Amino acid sequence: MDLGSSRAVEAGRRERARIRSRDLCGPTAGLAPGNVQANLVILPQALAHDFLRFAQANPKPCPVLAVSEPGDPRLPSLGEDLDIRTDLPLYRVWRRGELVEEPPEISHVWRDDLVSFALGCSFSFEHALIEEGIELRHMTCGSNVPMYRTNIQCRAAGPFAGPLVVSMRPLKPNDAIRAIQITSRFPSVHGAPVHIGLPAAIGIADLAKPDYGDAVPVEGDELPVFWACGVTPQAVIAQVRPEFCITHAPGSMLITDLVNSKLASL
Amino acid sequence: MDLGSSRAVEAGRRERARIRSRDLCGPTAGLAPGNVQANLVILPQALAHDFLRFAQANPKPCPVLAVSEPGDPRLPSLGEDLDIRTDLPLYRVWRRGELVEEPPEISHVWRDDLVSFALGCSFSFEHALIEEGIELRHMTCGSNVPMYRTNIQCRAAGPFAGPLVVSMRPLKPNDAIRAIQITSRFPSVHGAPVHIGLPAAIGIADLAKPDYGDAVPVEGDELPVFWACGVTPQAVIAQVRPEFCITHAPGSMLITDLVNSKLASL
Repeated sequence: MDLGSSRAVEAGRRERARIRSRDLCGPTAGLAPGNVQANLVILPQALAHDFLRFAQANPKPCPVLAVSEPGDPRLPSLGEDLDIRTDLPLYRVWRRGELVEEPPEISHVWRDDLVSFALGCSFSFEHALIEEGIELRHMTCGSNVPMYRTNIQCRAAGPFAGPLVVSMRPLKPNDAIRAIQITSRFPSVHGAPVHIGLPAAIGIADLAKPDYGDAVPVEGDELPVFWACGVTPQAVIAQVRPEFCITHAPGSMLITDLVNSKLASL
Repeated sequence: MDLGSSRAVEAGRRERARIRSRDLCGPTAGLAPGNVQANLVILPQALAHDFLRFAQANPKPCPVLAVSEPGDPRLPSLGEDLDIRTDLPLYRVWRRGELVEEPPEISHVWRDDLVSFALGCSFSFEHALIEEGIELRHMTCGSNVPMYRTNIQCRAAGPFAGPLVVSMRPLKPNDAIRAIQITSRFPSVHGAPVHIGLPAAIGIADLAKPDYGDAVPVEGDELPVFWACGVTPQAVIAQVRPEFCITHAPGSMLITDLVNSKLASL
């Protein structure tokens, strides 16, 4: 993948350097605007192939942007200087499904058999929606997007199996149609919605009670629109309880050199 | 426009010849499958420019496929042999907004100042939806698609003004999303839906009472999806009450040599 521009490469490199030096330690939303940010999953090599098969079979919740060589902390296709051990503000370290640590870097737990997966994130398509003037309610509310477990099962691969998790954005019908058109162009960052309008049909009993994130108001002239969510792989991994795993901490994403608009398929 | 294929040219020419010779006089649905069928509006030259401006300003309900020279009964871009006076099974002749005749050909009322407009028709995008395995309820019911006047006003041009008329197809949410993607590729035959899910928001009080066509059941796991409809220009012309006008009779469309799939923009 070679989807950077010199401006984006400079911005990505600058923000990663600030994070690496601990000059910057908060959430990454709004940093290097226009650059692709990614979800991070790091697994031992023994599980990596099954996880990659799971992602391949479930590209809407698990769009793979890059996979590292085993033991190699670099992901050069996302940033030449990128070091996955130091370049996110906050990580989560899991042992047998238990959160054991939330460190600002992971050099001390790095292993020669670890494989890193960078997965597309909704920030990219949200950027495209905002550029078109579409209001995103959770941003207006200053809260996290509401997310729900559905009754839609992902396709299993090895030990990886579980329900699809979706994020929800309330939109007026004409904005919903436009949002479907826009996000259809971005298959590598969740793509088109998976559902619209009838939450009960996908096993969501109450929009006011999200399983993750915060509830937002849905007005009478709006429809709830549901996209496959990057929390899906995290929920699936939590169920598998691998002996060792590292993920980004919520909101502390990997900033890449890729440009959101260049991910558009058309 | 050069969007035919030799198969389609042959099929279009054959069906038009059968209609011209009165060998065939019923509705055109299902004839020359895959060929574009068109709505027909014929107006005196004095009104033609305003009507074309109206169509230009309202491309979703009024997608123009071809416009004739004044007085010329041919539309060679839609079929080399095409004679607009004889090649539809049934016409409607209007004087000052009153339906005065429903003849099988219009040579006897032809005038040197008449301009013909061929407008895209939903048959084309319905063909694309069916090809993808999406059920169209009105076809299952063997009835006409339900159509509704909305509270959305078209952009006026000269005397031409009035509400947008929409057709409605009930779809399961995932089919609705797919249908938005598919029909977005066909801007010259109404394009993407104009509304989804909340009929009251566009002034439709009761789906069971369409203004044109027949009601169809909308199930609990379905959303009503609304497309701009070619009845819009006919309703607008009826309000203008031009001194003279000819249209196709409902269901008796102009069969062209164009191929539906070649209208796709992507």
